[in-house]
Amino acid sequence: SVNPDIASERQTASFSVEKLTARLDGGAEQTRMRRAVVEAIECDPEFSRENQYFQSQNERYEAAVRKATHLQKKMREMGWTEDGPEYKYIYRALSGDVAFLLHRIFMRSISVLGSDEQIAKWIPLASQYRLIGSYAQTELGHGTYLQGLETTAVFDSSTQEFILNTPKISAMKWWPGDMGRSATHTVAFAQLYIHGKCYGVHPFIVQIRSLQDHSLCPGITAGDIGPKMNFEHSDNGYLMLQNVRVPRENMLSKFCEVQPDGTYVRRGSQQINYFTMTTVRISLISDEVITPLMKACTIAIRYSVVRRQSKLKPGEQEAKILDYQTQQEKLLPQLAAVYAFHFINDYLQELFNRAYREIQRKNFDTLPELHASSSGFKALVSQHCTSGVEICLRACGGHGYSLLSGLPSLYTKIIASCIYEGENTILLLQTARFLIKCFMAASSGQPVPPSVTYLAAVKPGKCPAKNKLDFLSPDIYTEAFEHTAARLISSTAAELQDLVQSGVKKHDAWNRCTVQLAQAAKAHCHYITVKNFAETVERLETEAGIQKIMKHLCDLFALHGIFSNAGIFLHDGYLSGAQMDMVTASYLDLLAVIRKDAVPLVDAFDFTDKCLNSALGSYDGHVYQRLYEWAQKSPTNTQRSPAYERYLKPLLHNTLSKL
Amino acid sequence: SVNPDIASERQTASFSVEKLTARLDGGAEQTRMRRAVVEAIECDPEFSRENQYFQSQNERYEAAVRKATHLQKKMREMGWTEDGPEYKYIYRALSGDVAFLLHRIFMRSISVLGSDEQIAKWIPLASQYRLIGSYAQTELGHGTYLQGLETTAVFDSSTQEFILNTPKISAMKWWPGDMGRSATHTVAFAQLYIHGKCYGVHPFIVQIRSLQDHSLCPGITAGDIGPKMNFEHSDNGYLMLQNVRVPRENMLSKFCEVQPDGTYVRRGSQQINYFTMTTVRISLISDEVITPLMKACTIAIRYSVVRRQSKLKPGEQEAKILDYQTQQEKLLPQLAAVYAFHFINDYLQELFNRAYREIQRKNFDTLPELHASSSGFKALVSQHCTSGVEICLRACGGHGYSLLSGLPSLYTKIIASCIYEGENTILLLQTARFLIKCFMAASSGQPVPPSVTYLAAVKPGKCPAKNKLDFLSPDIYTEAFEHTAARLISSTAAELQDLVQSGVKKHDAWNRCTVQLAQAAKAHCHYITVKNFAETVERLETEAGIQKIMKHLCDLFALHGIFSNAGIFLHDGYLSGAQMDMVTASYLDLLAVIRKDAVPLVDAFDFTDKCLNSALGSYDGHVYQRLYEWAQKSPTNTQRSPAYERYLKPLLHNTLSKL
Repeated sequence: SVNPDIASERQTASFSVEKLTARLDGGAEQTRMRRAVVEAIECDPEFSRENQYFQSQNERYEAAVRKATHLQKKMREMGWTEDGPEYKYIYRALSGDVAFLLHRIFMRSISVLGSDEQIAKWIPLASQYRLIGSYAQTELGHGTYLQGLETTAVFDSSTQEFILNTPKISAMKWWPGDMGRSATHTVAFAQLYIHGKCYGVHPFIVQIRSLQDHSLCPGITAGDIGPKMNFEHSDNGYLMLQNVRVPRENMLSKFCEVQPDGTYVRRGSQQINYFTMTTVRISLISDEVITPLMKACTIAIRYSVVRRQSKLKPGEQEAKILDYQTQQEKLLPQLAAVYAFHFINDYLQELFNRAYREIQRKNFDTLPELHASSSGFKALVSQHCTSGVEICLRACGGHGYSLLSGLPSLYTKIIASCIYEGENTILLLQTARFLIKCFMAASSGQPVPPSVTYLAAVKPGKCPAKNKLDFLSPDIYTEAFEHTAARLISSTAAELQDLVQSGVKKHDAWNRCTVQLAQAAKAHCHYITVKNFAETVERLETEAGIQKIMKHLCDLFALHGIFSNAGIFLHDGYLSGAQMDMVTASYLDLLAVIRKDAVPLVDAFDFTDKCLNSALGSYDGHVYQRLYEWAQKSPTNTQRSPAYERYLKPLLHNTLSKL
Repeated sequence: SVNPDIASERQTASFSVEKLTARLDGGAEQTRMRRAVVEAIECDPEFSRENQYFQSQNERYEAAVRKATHLQKKMREMGWTEDGPEYKYIYRALSGDVAFLLHRIFMRSISVLGSDEQIAKWIPLASQYRLIGSYAQTELGHGTYLQGLETTAVFDSSTQEFILNTPKISAMKWWPGDMGRSATHTVAFAQLYIHGKCYGVHPFIVQIRSLQDHSLCPGITAGDIGPKMNFEHSDNGYLMLQNVRVPRENMLSKFCEVQPDGTYVRRGSQQINYFTMTTVRISLISDEVITPLMKACTIAIRYSVVRRQSKLKPGEQEAKILDYQTQQEKLLPQLAAVYAFHFINDYLQELFNRAYREIQRKNFDTLPELHASSSGFKALVSQHCTSGVEICLRACGGHGYSLLSGLPSLYTKIIASCIYEGENTILLLQTARFLIKCFMAASSGQPVPPSVTYLAAVKPGKCPAKNKLDFLSPDIYTEAFEHTAARLISSTAAELQDLVQSGVKKHDAWNRCTVQLAQAAKAHCHYITVKNFAETVERLETEAGIQKIMKHLCDLFALHGIFSNAGIFLHDGYLSGAQMDMVTASYLDLLAVIRKDAVPLVDAFDFTDKCLNSALGSYDGHVYQRLYEWAQKSPTNTQRSPAYERYLKPLLHNTLSKL
């Protein structure tokens, strides 16, 4: 039986949920495949996440390893492969709560950075799990600034080996997943030294544990870095290296090589060593950032139509909390953002595929744009989705704060995405550097990539909108975003130039403009996201009501963006105060429109109850029963605490010593 | 030995840290007392929080009970009392990680709402811990809307008892601290029925567990609500009541009473029943909201001067991350906000003391302003401090994400303050209701409380600032905040009126303006905070550099507020775009000024290393060593996982069945 308060929401959907699901999946065939994978995973009790919220870090780790090994068996049974189309659905069905994810990065590094011989040697071993790999880049003392890594790899031509060392405590590798307790091998990044000369950071395959008995290899100190805000399932580790020798063949050498006599040969850009990070950065946007916000929206919106609190009209029944404007204003912009980001992810994916084809041909020209885009969007989307999940959590009040709602763990996990694979502020500044360069190039008439041609024609102007309905025109709001992004980039470029011309050193000038540079980079990415959403809506089939509701969401995403960043649109008078009032009015009107389809819009994400793992977000809306049933299974109820006999009884019986 | 990178920060302090500490404490004598309490607590191993980040919910609960019982003994030894001046320091030293906090609320409820006889009967029992109390208000189905509580208390005149029931699952009490496993008694809020007529929500003392063997009393179902985002130490509980009878004398009856024949007598405002919530709301601002942000600032700022990453100037040593403008822009506004909120807390405390004196004399006139202020500031300050802690966490990169940094648990705890004791949006709307009323009154020339007299004279205007230095004048920025708050309140009032005049029902009109109403309430509280900070700075002694640095912080708080809410200041042209550029310039200049004193400014909070419990935030700045040492103590390193023998070995040895 379904709670009538949620059932009624589904009867009035303005569009076909099934068709929208297919659109999100990339076609009905994809939807079918996804459901088959999810079904196969979820009906297998080995993959159950039922007790997850009650488990310790040790229990979570063990379960993750158990699932990862069981998954090997399952994949063989089902005929799924690591690089097959099913993998992303497997990952989604497991909610990433599985070990050996870094083993995949280990393999990807070798595939991208290794020579043909290295690939031929290591990939089969890794695919068959004859070893367990990891990826050791970050150190205690260095994260974002890779050039500063302190681990060294000194070439010894007499033995044809590299000697690896972490010469001080800050050089210790810190954070690599799968490394604290599981991995036998890792790709370690170290400063390459040949005959006393440093050639910068390079990747080396290093064995850290015995394949026989899993004991640490000579010269290796390794362990687990301890408790974290989330990722309890992952054995993020530390690693010290003391005179650890690896053969010359263990330096990944597709793009550069050390020859037997110590001659260093480069076959491509030094940048390519960071390419694994770029690929990871792009793939995480969908799996680790957008999907969690989709889940949070599903949970919070379903809860908000079964939770009734207070009265909208005196004498009436208490109202569904989603009928309050303030609740709509919290949740519906998040819903719109999820769709916006889903489509920008498609855009990025395409950009990546194009660039990757070029790189395979050793053409690195597209790397700067790819790097700038992947950096900027990773920062924008992870920041936005993290705060979106937090808003969803808080919008569910006390129940959102219970782990059983699923929202706290979504939050504590997604917040890490603002930090890992490039800290967001650093990433935005890398995007800004690209934008400033493009702006200078465009200003002097040089060619720039298509996504930034708009910088060539920055001019003052006014928004032509005359009433609130005008703001439902994608041309109107897209131009407002374009104008504002261009203005922020050009004015920051001007300020940089002014500072330099007034005698400030270039790097000082840069540092003094970084707050504004980061803001400009964000505005650029925001603009591209709005533009891409509007263009996507135009291309959608008009049938089944999908284009119409997506148009509403696109409008909401854009107007919420203007409403909540009003300052940058008003600053130069592009929008007037009166126009901002129109934006606000249209924005608030849209909330009431989209509210009607809110439940169907989250249903379209098609998460099963097991996948959501939330007492608040189930499809049937029976929230209170589920909270009560789940709470009873908590160890705080099933395990008796010694606290009563030891402390409470003596206290109450007044027999506590000296009392 | 102290890390030279942090030692150097202390040599250049522009003010006396010790004098500022005394100012924050309220005098040198208070500082001395605080340090004595902290010393006594911290040298006692029973109160150690050393293993906190490694403990399960059950272990945390047991430790909290152990500490609470030990504390009774300690207090007796030390001559401290529950309502003595030391208590707040005890709480601070324990970081609230102790049981029986709701026992205190239980006692406070009885003191405030009980008759003299009830106080005489229950308070001694509770003080001596002959019972353990709790406070049962929130239900599964009702939190903010107290009128909707579903628990019933029916008066049975034949036995002179009340019969309490939770008639459906949503009526179950849910969340009360100390109730899941510890409490023997609770103050339960229920709808009072006499002869079939409902008299609204009233508080009743109910015994739930035996004083002899702690078994649940007849008709009682109770337990723990399970895992939460934090508060693992607290046994937040659930409670079902089935025909539980309590004597007539158990209804707290200072302000209303049921006489033996069922006559209902009221002696004060119905509102007074919620007064306990108001007192809790005010006291939590300092203990649960401001203190955690002080800790987060201390940790993040100390870390930011010992963490070096990347280079500001080519060829130089890597720079302290606090030397980057973007890092300053994250942390220093939080530091300024902490000081602003410390001073607004003094203001609120004074408002409360005045109101409380009146209430004792049964004069309830000040309740509306007190309720509006406590609501609005609780919302503003908890929201701001929560996002401040999150910013501090993220500003420490990966290391901030480790539980060992202390930042994740500060965050997961403080975020609850946005929800409990009144959900923030609801609270802001209550403040807004008060403001709209005052605006209407003021507009028609009626008297209003002093804090809102500014609403009487809303007029258009322009900021007179001519250059960036003008924005360092408190008059200039305070007026900008005042103008903006008044504009938002008056324009929302006008919109409400327009809607009603156009035929929209009053409650509909209200709901359609709530987004703007909440924004207006926030602007009002923001304005009062800026004004109060500026006035406080003026009153400070000029000696020892304290007034000067506080003036900088006040400027920063104000200009950061304008910079990050630019839209509302630009909207009606009160500030022009050119003036906003001046604000930005002054704001960014201030960051560089305050950066120099950043470490002394957090040192002044005077947290011991044990109190911070952070591998990143220690006074001596030895971050990496501490992270490594602490990680080695983690159960993930000290307990062997069965995962290797069970899963990894068969996988690596290729003996997993069917593989």
